[in-house]
Amino acid sequence: MQNSMPQKVRIVEVGPRDGLQNEKPAIDTATKLALIEQLAQTGLTYIEAGSFVNPKWVPQMAGSDEVFKQLPKKTGVTYAALTPNLKGFERALAAGAGEVAVFAAASETFSQKNINCSIAESLQRFAPVLAAAREQQLPVRGYVSCVVGCPYEGAISAQKVAELAEQLQQMGCYEISLGDTIGVGTPASVTTMLEAVGRRLPPAALAVHMHDTYGQALANIFASLQLGIAVVDSAVAGLGGCPYARGASGNVASEDLVYMLDGLGIEHGVDLQKLVRAGNFISAALGRENGSKAARAIGGKTGSC
Amino acid sequence: MQNSMPQKVRIVEVGPRDGLQNEKPAIDTATKLALIEQLAQTGLTYIEAGSFVNPKWVPQMAGSDEVFKQLPKKTGVTYAALTPNLKGFERALAAGAGEVAVFAAASETFSQKNINCSIAESLQRFAPVLAAAREQQLPVRGYVSCVVGCPYEGAISAQKVAELAEQLQQMGCYEISLGDTIGVGTPASVTTMLEAVGRRLPPAALAVHMHDTYGQALANIFASLQLGIAVVDSAVAGLGGCPYARGASGNVASEDLVYMLDGLGIEHGVDLQKLVRAGNFISAALGRENGSKAARAIGGKTGSC
Repeated sequence: MQNSMPQKVRIVEVGPRDGLQNEKPAIDTATKLALIEQLAQTGLTYIEAGSFVNPKWVPQMAGSDEVFKQLPKKTGVTYAALTPNLKGFERALAAGAGEVAVFAAASETFSQKNINCSIAESLQRFAPVLAAAREQQLPVRGYVSCVVGCPYEGAISAQKVAELAEQLQQMGCYEISLGDTIGVGTPASVTTMLEAVGRRLPPAALAVHMHDTYGQALANIFASLQLGIAVVDSAVAGLGGCPYARGASGNVASEDLVYMLDGLGIEHGVDLQKLVRAGNFISAALGRENGSKAARAIGGKTGSC
Repeated sequence: MQNSMPQKVRIVEVGPRDGLQNEKPAIDTATKLALIEQLAQTGLTYIEAGSFVNPKWVPQMAGSDEVFKQLPKKTGVTYAALTPNLKGFERALAAGAGEVAVFAAASETFSQKNINCSIAESLQRFAPVLAAAREQQLPVRGYVSCVVGCPYEGAISAQKVAELAEQLQQMGCYEISLGDTIGVGTPASVTTMLEAVGRRLPPAALAVHMHDTYGQALANIFASLQLGIAVVDSAVAGLGGCPYARGASGNVASEDLVYMLDGLGIEHGVDLQKLVRAGNFISAALGRENGSKAARAIGGKTGSC
């Protein structure tokens, strides 16, 4: 992989989906819509706005149909939906999602416990989604979770991640988002993993998705940028938690990521002040402190710089 | 500067001084002693245990004389004290401090507002401290604050930081700790600063001291390690706040640093579990949440890894 940082990064805002999915209480549709509209005003070009899963399993994502139907159609903003199977894809299509995503795990045990099937079976389940999406000309993004570690199996082989990423690409995913789902990675394990994947897929087809469970997310993203990764997932206000560690942090905060990209001179197109306001809005709705340190510093500033 | 990471890092634990100095309520001497004793049991070899300043200005550091007098003499652990002037040095000496530190700023305005004198005047004030320390054969560490940014002046010239670091070394400081006091740096500005300082002083004479105000501390430390820096300041539980941004985070958490160093395969000699317990102890005493994400994840773990 290359050893220079990208000039431009595309931020994939996953707060309304991966973030809210792991927060309590569940947020109502009107508040979700208000959040997504605020996010769309920041300059973000890609927002994962919901998930078409069974609300019995993920009550926080109930109402995704309404969310997508009512979303403002804003030029230059893609609203994506997670679609675990063909039924979910059909709902996403009916609701007007601009793009869909499928979600696989690099750990057999995690796959079994999380989506109740083997990795191979999950790919079979995605095949009709990818076929239908191709027919509808909807782009499909592929997630690989547990790319450096699994709550059940511990360390995950970089080779296994690379193989799965390549399979998803061959099935038709235009981009593979590599997720450190439980935030156990450090720049060393992340680099090892990205180098393995990078031997099969170009950096332009890859994104990183870091959780801040152990405080490592931004360091891991910096290491990823150094390897030429130019698409980064993040969640406003650091939304999301970790079901495997009570009280732990969620996704890397979009505000902290934007602050770092600004410092690195990397273009991203997002207005940090507007992003902080959107994060404060949803944090208040959830009754929690804003999980972004940059947001707290900017929001609580009393000095002169 | 070199472009390879060190095999071993010395962690300078600044929680009992730089951390508690910025926390409320003030912690009593017995609790400080209990914290420092717990920290000394973790494998840490260097603990900044207090400050000999006027308690009128820094009430949190009152009792430092008693703290140093009662500290357990443990082989292999250095207990250091901040000594702003000769009077402070004499108190530190009488109390049995193993090492002292002086604190300068790379920003004229910050120097005036923080220690009420110009940078040049502060060096004059340190001269008798360094002379007395030499006589007593006590090592002196030099801090440079505001190395990338100042709350009053904004960006700080890397050249100015390099000159001040060199002056402190020439006056007798064996190591210069470069502090991003308000946590505004990113890996880019930190790298620029370290490269400028590195043209005058070898990496072996440098340490980094990062605050996590904008969530950048660990990424900045990773960038510093890549430049060969092998001494890192941190505070257990991320103690300390930022007087210039209410609600903002303090020092980089020692637990998060240790977690990253473990991942990078860099030796440090510290027991993470014991460190988490020490951080939980002082967080409870302060009535606040543990500021280390790694500590929260480890403390709240319910999964199997």
